[in-house]
Amino acid sequence: MSKKGKIEARRLKGFQDYLPSTMALKYAITDTARRVARLSGFQPIATPALEYAEVLLGEGGETDKQVYKFRDNGDRDVAMRFDLTMSFARFVAENLGTLNIPFKRIQIGDVWRAEKPQKGRYREFCQCDLDVIGSDSVAADLEILLCLNRILDELNFGPFTQAVGNRVVLGHLIRHYFPDLTDELESQVFITLDKLDKVGPEKVGAMLREVLGESGHLVDDMLVKLLTKRGRDTDLAVLRELFSANPQALEALQRMQETIDLARVLTQGSAGAIIIDLSIARGLGYYTGIVFETTIDGQKAMGSISSGGRYNRLLERFSDRELPGVGGSIGVDRLAAVLEEIKHCQGEKDGVYIAVATEAALQYAHVVAAHFRQAAMVADVSLKAGKLGQQFKYAERGPYGYIVTVGDKEKEQQVYSIKIIATGDEVRDLPLAKINDQIISMHKKG
Amino acid sequence: MSKKGKIEARRLKGFQDYLPSTMALKYAITDTARRVARLSGFQPIATPALEYAEVLLGEGGETDKQVYKFRDNGDRDVAMRFDLTMSFARFVAENLGTLNIPFKRIQIGDVWRAEKPQKGRYREFCQCDLDVIGSDSVAADLEILLCLNRILDELNFGPFTQAVGNRVVLGHLIRHYFPDLTDELESQVFITLDKLDKVGPEKVGAMLREVLGESGHLVDDMLVKLLTKRGRDTDLAVLRELFSANPQALEALQRMQETIDLARVLTQGSAGAIIIDLSIARGLGYYTGIVFETTIDGQKAMGSISSGGRYNRLLERFSDRELPGVGGSIGVDRLAAVLEEIKHCQGEKDGVYIAVATEAALQYAHVVAAHFRQAAMVADVSLKAGKLGQQFKYAERGPYGYIVTVGDKEKEQQVYSIKIIATGDEVRDLPLAKINDQIISMHKKG
Repeated sequence: MSKKGKIEARRLKGFQDYLPSTMALKYAITDTARRVARLSGFQPIATPALEYAEVLLGEGGETDKQVYKFRDNGDRDVAMRFDLTMSFARFVAENLGTLNIPFKRIQIGDVWRAEKPQKGRYREFCQCDLDVIGSDSVAADLEILLCLNRILDELNFGPFTQAVGNRVVLGHLIRHYFPDLTDELESQVFITLDKLDKVGPEKVGAMLREVLGESGHLVDDMLVKLLTKRGRDTDLAVLRELFSANPQALEALQRMQETIDLARVLTQGSAGAIIIDLSIARGLGYYTGIVFETTIDGQKAMGSISSGGRYNRLLERFSDRELPGVGGSIGVDRLAAVLEEIKHCQGEKDGVYIAVATEAALQYAHVVAAHFRQAAMVADVSLKAGKLGQQFKYAERGPYGYIVTVGDKEKEQQVYSIKIIATGDEVRDLPLAKINDQIISMHKKG
Repeated sequence: MSKKGKIEARRLKGFQDYLPSTMALKYAITDTARRVARLSGFQPIATPALEYAEVLLGEGGETDKQVYKFRDNGDRDVAMRFDLTMSFARFVAENLGTLNIPFKRIQIGDVWRAEKPQKGRYREFCQCDLDVIGSDSVAADLEILLCLNRILDELNFGPFTQAVGNRVVLGHLIRHYFPDLTDELESQVFITLDKLDKVGPEKVGAMLREVLGESGHLVDDMLVKLLTKRGRDTDLAVLRELFSANPQALEALQRMQETIDLARVLTQGSAGAIIIDLSIARGLGYYTGIVFETTIDGQKAMGSISSGGRYNRLLERFSDRELPGVGGSIGVDRLAAVLEEIKHCQGEKDGVYIAVATEAALQYAHVVAAHFRQAAMVADVSLKAGKLGQQFKYAERGPYGYIVTVGDKEKEQQVYSIKIIATGDEVRDLPLAKINDQIISMHKKG
């Protein structure tokens, strides 16, 4: 190593180290997601962190500016992925021949955005994406909503809400009031509506009037249709009346109603409620149908922990082949941060620390440890034989519930002593031959 | 999306997409590593993919040239991590106050190296690192060897060999022949010895003669001490004689013997054999004691699947505090590639595909699916109701062993039909109320 002056040990702004307690939460989330998704027929894939810049960029908007891009040693313009969707499109286009379509993927991976760091927003974060490609059916929309609902429900952190909107229905509503709107202006309206949670309805109203060049009541009327019941269900009956002369809008509304009705029936008993919220627009340009966001009840300020929607133009930038898709993402780091804040799943002190009185007892200590591990208990052997007081203190600071002590005498007689840290109770000279009885009684207590 | 000309859907050279069959293997490796390491008291952490360049670089040598580095939007020199050790040093220096020392970590993550891509070598690959910091004991060296041995043993792919060397002993051997060697030249000798597997002993002999400026028998004599028994155990008795007048060398040898003896006793019954191979030098500069490499028997050409060693100057570049460490890494992607080649853990066709005859039966299909999932079976509901022939063909191409069919009649009567894909056997109109009996009989067959 360099012998010249010291370097400051510091992280980049907006990047995090994850300590064991947070990692335990992150793994609880991703393991649950993997298990539930696998049982529902989703298959795991992975794609590179780095891609040709042109593969990821070009959607325009906010995201392009936030991408980490550079020229590599081979003089290629490359970029670090900012989500798991754009590179999935490249993956699908490149692997189309080998995939069984419709294809359901689960992908877990880090993404990078050079955003302004703020509470709960980092420049590196982990996403867990579920997608169904090759089907435009209500069943596919449902599949994503339901599987995400089950994952979050199984994490058992309490009530949450999946708010479901629809870009097509919202588009019809906007054009009901502003029939001559250009596509560009419509995108602007979506991006503005997406700021509702951040800046509130009044400011959004003002911004919309600016975008639409309208001063009057039309913007207000439109917002009222979306917002009167915000936080509860949007009233689809009101929209049905509004759209009475527009069969396409009625059809989109009908599909939305059907999806919601089925999703509600099939999530009975779940902690996750499903509501209609047509004001959900999502900032990204590629959505073409259902869109949704998920918040933990009472933690709405932390933002959405899971969102997504239908994107039927997935392959557009790579080929003329049309392939519809629908997907959703769990923000693993954000969800872990919320769960940490609401003190969900605290690490338990249930491990066994094996204190070693003499060097000669090290091998025996490992034999004892193997018995506990066989019974799926954490068993950590002290790395330093000798002073037991120091070893006990170390154990008391760590994730341990029990201290087992072994030394020369214990080794000779094939016994061990065990102490319960919480109570201080100690039993000496238990026979190794009966250690499984001991483990069973520990499990019963725990 | 951009409406102008199409973009080619292509990956960067040296980067891979992972399809479900490979991902299943990767997850099998990392899940086993996480479980075994957790039971042995290792705790999970994570660090960022990007760091200040100065945190990662400066070890010199081959690796520095292979690092992806660039200037970010905030004009900082940043680099993508090329291993999980340098950023771990930064992590330890920055979090020293909150860690319970000795601290045992497990970290799983991708790393990036702009190497020349070749079979089994990619520019992005996943590593799983185990480390113990804060202990210079034999017990700590042993902990790493044993835990890696258990992980690989539990993966159950067959016999493998952990070859253990020691930098200190090797250093004494080199200085026995070349007492006036500078530190720089010694590093050169280590780097040259590390090429043994790639270029063979004759070429290494020629390279060493060049490095050491020696034409004669000394280099040959030294190599003979290392290599006569290469592939089996180096003869420590020969070295003990050689070092008879060098108490420090004898002490290092004694420690090595002790570690190996304990490791052998404690890995009895494992598929992983432990051998002594003093020619193991490891290219990286930071090793200061035990070093090891692991190969699958009969697959040596695939290279090491797990390697590491002791590094007692971990914090040197950040602080004056000394903190000894020892660690090892499993090359997850390389191991997965070998297992794929030797056809280990093929994906099984044991899922249930639920074919849906009518739109109206979709809800009922989900109810049926929930029963299978409850019993931990994969149950995938068709995304398109209607033509059963198409649905059957899709199921036969996928990872399914059974096709369950539901339609209006089945929904009304609360029954289902089931077909075993492999045999073509079909049973109709089984009662939903007794589905658990059916699942139990499927489990018995599987």
